[in-house]
Amino acid sequence: MVLLRRLLGSLRTARNLTTLATFQTRNNRSGWGAVFAVGGFATVSLAAIHCRKNKVYAATLLEKHGWMSEPVTDPVQMEKNSDTMRIRMEKMIMDIQAEFCRALEAEEGGKKFLVDKWQRKEGGGGITCVLQDGEVFEKAGVNISVVMGNLPPAAVAQMKTRGKSLEGKTLPFFATGVSSVIHPKNPNVPTIHFNYRYFEVTDETGQKHWWFGGGTDLTPYFLDEQDVVHFHKTLKTACDKHDKGYYPRFKKWCDEYFFIKHRGQSRGVGGIFFDDLEDGSAEDTFKFVSTCAKSVTPSYIPLVKKNKNKGYSYKDRRWQLLRRGYYAEFNLVYDRGTKFGLQTPGARIESIMMSLPLNASWEYCHEVKPGSPEQKLTDVLRNPKDWV
Amino acid sequence: MVLLRRLLGSLRTARNLTTLATFQTRNNRSGWGAVFAVGGFATVSLAAIHCRKNKVYAATLLEKHGWMSEPVTDPVQMEKNSDTMRIRMEKMIMDIQAEFCRALEAEEGGKKFLVDKWQRKEGGGGITCVLQDGEVFEKAGVNISVVMGNLPPAAVAQMKTRGKSLEGKTLPFFATGVSSVIHPKNPNVPTIHFNYRYFEVTDETGQKHWWFGGGTDLTPYFLDEQDVVHFHKTLKTACDKHDKGYYPRFKKWCDEYFFIKHRGQSRGVGGIFFDDLEDGSAEDTFKFVSTCAKSVTPSYIPLVKKNKNKGYSYKDRRWQLLRRGYYAEFNLVYDRGTKFGLQTPGARIESIMMSLPLNASWEYCHEVKPGSPEQKLTDVLRNPKDWV
Repeated sequence: MVLLRRLLGSLRTARNLTTLATFQTRNNRSGWGAVFAVGGFATVSLAAIHCRKNKVYAATLLEKHGWMSEPVTDPVQMEKNSDTMRIRMEKMIMDIQAEFCRALEAEEGGKKFLVDKWQRKEGGGGITCVLQDGEVFEKAGVNISVVMGNLPPAAVAQMKTRGKSLEGKTLPFFATGVSSVIHPKNPNVPTIHFNYRYFEVTDETGQKHWWFGGGTDLTPYFLDEQDVVHFHKTLKTACDKHDKGYYPRFKKWCDEYFFIKHRGQSRGVGGIFFDDLEDGSAEDTFKFVSTCAKSVTPSYIPLVKKNKNKGYSYKDRRWQLLRRGYYAEFNLVYDRGTKFGLQTPGARIESIMMSLPLNASWEYCHEVKPGSPEQKLTDVLRNPKDWV
Repeated sequence: MVLLRRLLGSLRTARNLTTLATFQTRNNRSGWGAVFAVGGFATVSLAAIHCRKNKVYAATLLEKHGWMSEPVTDPVQMEKNSDTMRIRMEKMIMDIQAEFCRALEAEEGGKKFLVDKWQRKEGGGGITCVLQDGEVFEKAGVNISVVMGNLPPAAVAQMKTRGKSLEGKTLPFFATGVSSVIHPKNPNVPTIHFNYRYFEVTDETGQKHWWFGGGTDLTPYFLDEQDVVHFHKTLKTACDKHDKGYYPRFKKWCDEYFFIKHRGQSRGVGGIFFDDLEDGSAEDTFKFVSTCAKSVTPSYIPLVKKNKNKGYSYKDRRWQLLRRGYYAEFNLVYDRGTKFGLQTPGARIESIMMSLPLNASWEYCHEVKPGSPEQKLTDVLRNPKDWV
């Protein structure tokens, strides 16, 4: 009864109840969540009783950390292995997810994130937080995932082409990361995307390979140089805390990565991007990635505050929708994460496609007027500049 | 002066004048068209005079055939080589373009196709006809192209993986085809896509390889079985004139090709699709492809007439936009033609991207209600059926 009382206490807030109910509606799977959803404790089965301790622990964790949902990893395992990079990374991304979602909700007109916890048949799962058709955000998604299993031969082969010296064809892997795209309603507010991830593969010789990847980048619809400078400066400050060489290197990498080749222009004004980061110690790289992830909120929220109530015309909105068409083109044609996701058996398509805007347009031969604000933006997209 | 008079006579219709003026605005290149656009005959340069004969011929051709524009190939060369497959194919697709565009215009509320003639630096060019944001059609594109040059090694390698026994790495090629996507406004009117093409490659041993490809397929937003049966019956009748085995074979191929793997469903209700058709004589295959191309108008226009004035709700429109998101996904992620285009140096991106809808949407975890019209369509997309 003590356990039950603690459990109920920690579930008292409306958010937590909603959270659990929501994800259970969508993930009709056995476990404690289902128990809450279908009829309270009267239906607790014998099989579930031994999980109670974990569940109570999960609820306590939720309360303690203010996370959006229970973690993917079993809470007892989480505490037991709290020194491992896997768990430290999972906790870090859970923190970031909660912090960013709440910062976004604070800018919204009352609408809250839908929290969708899902499991992956092949191992692991994720927590998708979505806010759709709000007053300020047209589509905002903040996902975390913790997945493991066997990499299919095609994925191993693809990693080898990127210079990984992996022995074997089908290899056990572990991957965890946070990934987010925020498409605001007002064309004066830029879209932001970020992703921070950790990867482990064990090859046939038993050697464990690991690397980190990530980045944050901005896609404005109109160019406000002050905003772009603020954004880049925040990222540079984060990078500089770890290595003065990081910002210039990862800024360049970002400009190269987000280039829409067939359009001859970048998706946005860049930011930072890096992949296969395995050159320092795991400890140092984790700290660097954590600092970057923590810099997302201060890099972006001021831009939302400043621009979300500005007026805009029908023409501005049309332009935003056309740029969102380009955004969809980049993600579907070039983005490595999207491609990897679409090829991965058991991948959760809705989480992958969440990066796509709620609305996008394609007009035949749209032309921007010389000297117009649209032209000013396009010039910068065609010739990426240094902002700090 | 006789020449001039004939020329003026053949340009008397408003359409032709618009056509020539339009394509010259967009293709600031030398030639007769530029003369018309910038200031009449007073500016005819000496260099242009020897082209006059061709031009007059072109104008006569235009009038005689009712084409949407002058052909890509020089009209004198066209007549001289009129027995070759290249020219016969070019004339056939010009005929189809004109016939289909006019049939669509007849359904519209007065809006006409914009005719955009373009040249390709590397050789050849095309004629893009677009009607955007009309009363009946949201985006209608009917393109023809006649291009030649050298295939890059990647394209040759890709053809080899498809079983072509080509000797060499960079090979001269010729390709011509008609390609069209019609996205109507009313969700009760399906989207249609068709493409008929002819390809020639000469390998290092001097051997000329040729093949035809093509197909017509339908993407309804709501299932009207009568419409789908009419569509498939028209295609089957066309196929049966040439080979009773064609329709079942190409219907199956179509269902397989237009399958959106990551969504576990087809883009639409299929039609016919074939590629690398080189098993019969070129003559027979050309006749078959011509019959298919001619069946487009009767397969589709009755569906437009029947449904274009039906009422629809906001919810119907939202559903149409979501399906258009899937359409964009297929084209950008899987479609071989789009991928080939995006990789081809000097390809005309606006013509390739014309297949994308004017508007598309992506909603997170959209669910269709059991028993709803949306569900009825989805069932058929998940399990393609036989319609005739």
